[in-house]
Amino acid sequence: MNGSRVEDALQVYSGSLALLTDLYQLTMAHGYWRAGMAEREACFTLSFRQHPFNGGYTIACGQGTLSSYLQRFRFEVSDLDYLASLTGRDGKALFEDDFLRYLEQSELRCDIDAVDEGTVVFPHEPLLRVRGPIWQAQILETPILNIVNFQTLIATKAARVCEATGGGPVLEFGLRRAHGIDGALAASRAAYVGGCAGTSNVLAGKLYGIPVRGTHAHSWVMSFDSELEAFKTYAAAMPNNCVFLVDTYDTLEGVRNAIVVGRWLREQGQELLGIRLDSGDLAYLSIEARRMLDKAGFNHCVVFASNDLDEWIIESLKKQGATIAAWGVGTKLVTGHEDGALGGIYKITAIRDAHGRWQDRIKLSEQAVKVSTPGVLQVRRFHDGGRLIADAVFNENHQPDADCIIVDPVDHTRRRRLSASLEYVDLLQPYMTKGELRATHCASIEHARKRVKDGLAALHSTLKRLTYPHIYPVGLERGLHELKTRLILEARSGMDER
Amino acid sequence: MNGSRVEDALQVYSGSLALLTDLYQLTMAHGYWRAGMAEREACFTLSFRQHPFNGGYTIACGQGTLSSYLQRFRFEVSDLDYLASLTGRDGKALFEDDFLRYLEQSELRCDIDAVDEGTVVFPHEPLLRVRGPIWQAQILETPILNIVNFQTLIATKAARVCEATGGGPVLEFGLRRAHGIDGALAASRAAYVGGCAGTSNVLAGKLYGIPVRGTHAHSWVMSFDSELEAFKTYAAAMPNNCVFLVDTYDTLEGVRNAIVVGRWLREQGQELLGIRLDSGDLAYLSIEARRMLDKAGFNHCVVFASNDLDEWIIESLKKQGATIAAWGVGTKLVTGHEDGALGGIYKITAIRDAHGRWQDRIKLSEQAVKVSTPGVLQVRRFHDGGRLIADAVFNENHQPDADCIIVDPVDHTRRRRLSASLEYVDLLQPYMTKGELRATHCASIEHARKRVKDGLAALHSTLKRLTYPHIYPVGLERGLHELKTRLILEARSGMDER
Repeated sequence: MNGSRVEDALQVYSGSLALLTDLYQLTMAHGYWRAGMAEREACFTLSFRQHPFNGGYTIACGQGTLSSYLQRFRFEVSDLDYLASLTGRDGKALFEDDFLRYLEQSELRCDIDAVDEGTVVFPHEPLLRVRGPIWQAQILETPILNIVNFQTLIATKAARVCEATGGGPVLEFGLRRAHGIDGALAASRAAYVGGCAGTSNVLAGKLYGIPVRGTHAHSWVMSFDSELEAFKTYAAAMPNNCVFLVDTYDTLEGVRNAIVVGRWLREQGQELLGIRLDSGDLAYLSIEARRMLDKAGFNHCVVFASNDLDEWIIESLKKQGATIAAWGVGTKLVTGHEDGALGGIYKITAIRDAHGRWQDRIKLSEQAVKVSTPGVLQVRRFHDGGRLIADAVFNENHQPDADCIIVDPVDHTRRRRLSASLEYVDLLQPYMTKGELRATHCASIEHARKRVKDGLAALHSTLKRLTYPHIYPVGLERGLHELKTRLILEARSGMDER
Repeated sequence: MNGSRVEDALQVYSGSLALLTDLYQLTMAHGYWRAGMAEREACFTLSFRQHPFNGGYTIACGQGTLSSYLQRFRFEVSDLDYLASLTGRDGKALFEDDFLRYLEQSELRCDIDAVDEGTVVFPHEPLLRVRGPIWQAQILETPILNIVNFQTLIATKAARVCEATGGGPVLEFGLRRAHGIDGALAASRAAYVGGCAGTSNVLAGKLYGIPVRGTHAHSWVMSFDSELEAFKTYAAAMPNNCVFLVDTYDTLEGVRNAIVVGRWLREQGQELLGIRLDSGDLAYLSIEARRMLDKAGFNHCVVFASNDLDEWIIESLKKQGATIAAWGVGTKLVTGHEDGALGGIYKITAIRDAHGRWQDRIKLSEQAVKVSTPGVLQVRRFHDGGRLIADAVFNENHQPDADCIIVDPVDHTRRRRLSASLEYVDLLQPYMTKGELRATHCASIEHARKRVKDGLAALHSTLKRLTYPHIYPVGLERGLHELKTRLILEARSGMDER
């Protein structure tokens, strides 16, 4: 694997993160090893059941970070020492020494196929597929879900916020309310992929090359005897970075003070870049501030707003004629308010039997939506060049017919024929081959960001609506639907006979 | 500072995290430096305005992690190179070279006072106070809030969940849905402080000494031809760690299979520890499973449950007579559902003038609850030995009278006299002195966990109710209330005169 071609999104971490997994992955690995099954090839698939935020689309994200994780995957001596110290109910070791040596000597040998980072994706389709020795494919479940669930949530939220501003730049300001250090770094990364123009997080800027922005806080104003003195002092110190926060005492008085200092800046050959509103009625205050700035000749001075914003509030402010041209979004962006988590799942869908033949696997549930889909899954996206039409999930061991019929995964009476004349692309592409990362799929976040932009442009506008968006058609290719139905019926009748 | 006595909660990170801050902290630092004010001593206070989850108490957490952050605070060459590359609107550097050299040569010289980790705290009172050169106290705002906001949120959630189970152990299972790598590690740490008995996160176990738990997933069952074969194979491999997940196909059939293998385990001198339910009606299934287990002689086999649990669902299950004895809580615990963030704020409350005298500072807002409280603040907790009575926030520069009168911070007509005969303790204790950490305040998470337990026991039960809990009395000491009122009136009349 060629490390120099791959961004290391986890460079702040020292050493391996192989223990970043659930204990049950390791106890299962131990069990497979004891049963002589550890090297049996299995296929696992990552998918999700519904869009976050009741939305109409989701942005797949995190693949770049996952590359870094996979690159450094190995069990270190201290990891093995720790595992050796764990005991069961009888006080004896949980893991045999020979198993720990097996872990120590193992290198990743999985094949991973994934959608490109930044791709628009939909419920029920595979985002990522891992084939490899069952213990390895199993142990990767937790870190893959940790990385992909969160960054996908945040990239999607960012895309929604950026769509709501209608092009007005969005800066991500969430570091102080994010979930720990990496909760912040990963959020800044995903928010940029999703469309944000920059971040306040300096470390994210350094690590990922994201533009960083910031000027001053209320405390700056409060550490001087007057707001005017505060603005003047700031302008003298940072004349090329002046956006004044005007609401420490009285917002419109703050705008007047900003204008006074803006005139002084002009005399120095500099320019007042903007004012920021961080409280009060942002519709009213932005309109009044804009009027004052324009009247004073500061037509290019941007009205910037923050204060617990999200896509819904931004949409409302736009409708009210707010003159806000740039947006700072923090808490609700980086915490994925109000979902908090993407419910991505990683299910075993096939396993080779002792003769090397793939056996399809299914998990039942009383809820149809929770029954897993069997097979070595791939997803084919049909389009007419510019516009997406429908996605078909199929089993790679049984290619679809020329005219592909898809069946809705939760209502089998809803079907659609996709003509052989349509263009299509298969979304899962090689990402890791026998443990070697494919550098083309670990490209920079700028590529992912571009992919989001292009992907959203290819969606019908009704899919991007905040309220009850249109539902994009995703179905199981008919052969796969029939396989799934047969396996469910077999499993249920097997239970009846017991 | 004595590193060997301090847990390094951030040992997975390589090097400094000094750039883990908002850019505006650095532009303000540059501004103070340019204005010759950088060394001026300022006082900042961290507090929050309302309990998360509409609850009646909050658990302060994150101080141990913050210690690690502060210990490694320094600007590295690569940090300074990055800052030197940043430019303003005219394309010229944002920061002067001499300022970057000043950063490089600076060591932390702040005094920090904080409540002990695991302390029960309430809105409007200081959790942490930083005094030091204004640029340093300012730059620490973001990492302090990042670390303390999140871990306080999660420790509080964990305490609520553990209260709801009434003593039944809670395992934290959230790694796959947490916000990135550290979002998971910090959540595991805070959940353990808050009362959880263990975690599934192996790396958190290794780093923090938290007990780790786990057995097998649905995929284990699906990788065999039958559930019975899957349980038998697991029992043979891990006889001292058997908790069978019984709902892959049909839950009660799964219980029957678990009993069959439980009998085999007994023959080996081992014991079936439990069964786990992860779907379906947990009240009904737990009652049926308990009956089956008891009838078969497995009275000590624990019924374990998981599936999108939180304190509300657990309370409901308990009321329905569910026989669940151990609980796995994931997503809703580690994401702090349904708040996602504690709104902790860090405000400048005083600054020394050119003569070295403390000047109190206030930030106005149209909302009374958002007006900051001025002074060098401390909080005094009155108690009668076993039970908490009320907390008084006061200005250390003006000690309260013997009989302390407190005024509600949002309704000045609500007052309470706290008799001089009451016992009390001042909660802010030295945490860092002139940049040196005080090891006693960086003790193990076991101490913090114990403090949570003791603190909750000292609260009246009505404060721990989930629905509309009682409100614990916190007030501003009368002298502080009068100072705050005077400063607000002065600031507002100042604006009227302009």
